[in-house]
Amino acid sequence: MADEVVLLDFWPSVFGMRVRIALAEKGIKYEYKDEDLRNKSPLLLEMNPIHKKIPVLIHNGKPVCESLIIVQYIDEVWKDRCPLLPIDPYQRAHSRFWADFVDKKVIEVLRKILFTKGEEKEPGKKEFFEIFKILEGELGDKPYFGGETFGFVDLSLIPYYSWFHAIETLGEFNIEAECPKIVAWAKRCLQKETVAKTLPDQKKVYEYVEQIRKRFGNG
Amino acid sequence: MADEVVLLDFWPSVFGMRVRIALAEKGIKYEYKDEDLRNKSPLLLEMNPIHKKIPVLIHNGKPVCESLIIVQYIDEVWKDRCPLLPIDPYQRAHSRFWADFVDKKVIEVLRKILFTKGEEKEPGKKEFFEIFKILEGELGDKPYFGGETFGFVDLSLIPYYSWFHAIETLGEFNIEAECPKIVAWAKRCLQKETVAKTLPDQKKVYEYVEQIRKRFGNG
Repeated sequence: MADEVVLLDFWPSVFGMRVRIALAEKGIKYEYKDEDLRNKSPLLLEMNPIHKKIPVLIHNGKPVCESLIIVQYIDEVWKDRCPLLPIDPYQRAHSRFWADFVDKKVIEVLRKILFTKGEEKEPGKKEFFEIFKILEGELGDKPYFGGETFGFVDLSLIPYYSWFHAIETLGEFNIEAECPKIVAWAKRCLQKETVAKTLPDQKKVYEYVEQIRKRFGNG
Repeated sequence: MADEVVLLDFWPSVFGMRVRIALAEKGIKYEYKDEDLRNKSPLLLEMNPIHKKIPVLIHNGKPVCESLIIVQYIDEVWKDRCPLLPIDPYQRAHSRFWADFVDKKVIEVLRKILFTKGEEKEPGKKEFFEIFKILEGELGDKPYFGGETFGFVDLSLIPYYSWFHAIETLGEFNIEAECPKIVAWAKRCLQKETVAKTLPDQKKVYEYVEQIRKRFGNG
């Protein structure tokens, strides 16, 4: 039986992008369904009744939810090609730690910058650079977080690069000036077709953020 | 070389208990070091400089942090005995989803019940039963979350049972009356020596919670 793979997603979602990159890395064909998050499809509500969130990967009719869990699932099912997690248990734990760090820290700080006004942004800006300095420290002089090849941590973080123009414009700062290694790393990742084809245009993401800000009275 | 395993932990920590159960399941000997969280040891700060939190598993000098990541590490290193995660990728993703659900929901709702006063507790109480009803639905009529044997989801949730007396006393409700299947499941888990020997006495946890409440002016 050929694998039937469907992805329920929403184009600016950093979580969805992780799954799209993983599927592209593995060369898996799938049907992409973009959700309207203000009017979620019956399929999304059926496939993720607990969180009702995208992304959901539906593999031969069975749903897998939560982006990092989906990426690990993809890595385990299609294990014959392009490993995303390292083989060594210690390196695997190390990769999971940093992907988890991204999950625990980055989305929260973006909210503090993107959906606030004036002075309210200051703590978020400070925290943003604290987080990205820590990430720069972990990256060090390696080309990718996992070392020589693109992997789980890179894939977890790189989607946020498509939000950098919105962050810089609304935060009124320059990321490259403070975190040059992160921007150089992001540009390195973008040389990969699997990443370049997945990440939406930064200007398009900025327009989307502006729409959301207006909807919530921050615009 | 014999494995040198050290656990930095704090006895009432539900996160630490997960690791202790995993180590007991695998039959691994280790040195237990109880931390004073108001005066963290230099070793803890050195081994987990990012989060500065317990538990930290130090295996042959190398630290692994974050409880569910540690448990997966233990399962991958000592893979020859007592598997904690299932082998099938779909079942693994399913287990990870529910352990993640416990992480995302339970600790937060406990704070709302344990460290509030009077009427402030009501939203937390309502939410507590919503969460545990969902968990009961997932458990269904199975003996354990993963099916016939104790595994990753059971191990993620069972430490909270040692907090049930504190939750019931401070929340002024009876968990068994609303969620009999969860309490029956917890009692089933406690028949396992690895769990029974790990979980602290509920009364002792309650005394600890009372100390914390007094310290923060809720007592």
